[in-house]
Amino acid sequence: MTGRLTGIRACVFDAYGTLFDFASAAARCRDTLGDKAGPLTALWRDKQLQYSWLRSLQDRYVPFDQITADALDYAMHALGIDDPALRTRLLDLYLTLSPFPEVPGVLRRLVAAGYRTAILSNGSPAMLAPLVAQPGIDGNLHAVLSVDEVRVFKTHPRVYQLAVDSLGVSAGEICFFSANAWDAWAASAFGLRVVWCNRDAHPPENLPGRPDAELRTLDQALPLLV
Amino acid sequence: MTGRLTGIRACVFDAYGTLFDFASAAARCRDTLGDKAGPLTALWRDKQLQYSWLRSLQDRYVPFDQITADALDYAMHALGIDDPALRTRLLDLYLTLSPFPEVPGVLRRLVAAGYRTAILSNGSPAMLAPLVAQPGIDGNLHAVLSVDEVRVFKTHPRVYQLAVDSLGVSAGEICFFSANAWDAWAASAFGLRVVWCNRDAHPPENLPGRPDAELRTLDQALPLLV
Repeated sequence: MTGRLTGIRACVFDAYGTLFDFASAAARCRDTLGDKAGPLTALWRDKQLQYSWLRSLQDRYVPFDQITADALDYAMHALGIDDPALRTRLLDLYLTLSPFPEVPGVLRRLVAAGYRTAILSNGSPAMLAPLVAQPGIDGNLHAVLSVDEVRVFKTHPRVYQLAVDSLGVSAGEICFFSANAWDAWAASAFGLRVVWCNRDAHPPENLPGRPDAELRTLDQALPLLV
Repeated sequence: MTGRLTGIRACVFDAYGTLFDFASAAARCRDTLGDKAGPLTALWRDKQLQYSWLRSLQDRYVPFDQITADALDYAMHALGIDDPALRTRLLDLYLTLSPFPEVPGVLRRLVAAGYRTAILSNGSPAMLAPLVAQPGIDGNLHAVLSVDEVRVFKTHPRVYQLAVDSLGVSAGEICFFSANAWDAWAASAFGLRVVWCNRDAHPPENLPGRPDAELRTLDQALPLLV
């Protein structure tokens, strides 16, 4: 799974978990959350994804900021945390999640090598704007694509088609990077070339598709592309 | 949330988790699984649902027995269990999951009171047949409805519409019972009347819909209907 990726014109990145560390929000509230920071992050994320899939199946789209708040409310309730100020703080922090350390360098190298770069995310435009304005991200992305334009969440094929249509390249000319296995498999089944950034060493999925490469961090993809 | 439910003509039950205990498969393999029985049940179920939602979103339906086997393979891999004989045994046991203790009595009472009774399940017909042939279930169901007929999983609205079409009653005349919160909320959003059998005391979901009643076991619904 580590051959050089040829014929690629655009590098498209998932946002949450791939470029930006969603665990960083609760981690920055460890003063208040203590040992619950880890469980809160896990349940918040699980519910956020579950709500995105269920609402998409029912054709009841709402922007990802509402999904994110709904999921946080569930997670806080489930963990017995009743703290409106903490809720506000966590949702604010979700707008300034930390990039993973290798991200600025990877984007810079890919742009310098002539690739078009983009984000393709469940996040609404209002959530993505402050994330991509951060130093090291700003100026290194040619496009920020939100599912809000097609009003359905990943893994609906309309989402991956949005990248093709917006970037004006064919599916096979896109290298899509995701740390979320379900997203990586679905993008591959759609027809994108896929790098699975398997940060937490999860097992492979038993779903349609198959990533072209599996790596631990994004910088490990540079020898495949640059 | 405990007022009497009026105008109901049909009582429709989710299968897995509601009538039948999916934890009973791994529990019967505790001789081999030991302390991993609980974690295996949880991960197997999580992946099974995740795969059903993701494939439905991508319009890549396969019958639930394949989903169930794919999810089991993932869960065994993740927990470091490499045991083909155990895999076969678990999948066989999934076909004879134990009914929850109150189920035969509840079905009998509802039938005696003149309600039509049915199952509406993600399970394929081949998976449901041996389950409903068990003593206390057999003879107390007027219909066994599988999503296989509409080739998409819950929570797609076509699934809940299948109950309406098959039973020849209106959505508001169906009382749908589910222990799966996401299923209960979606059925309510569709327009069915819903009893959420919240066996494990989970928090309510932040999704469209709202169950008409929340109970711990199915027999607690009898005063609302009989």
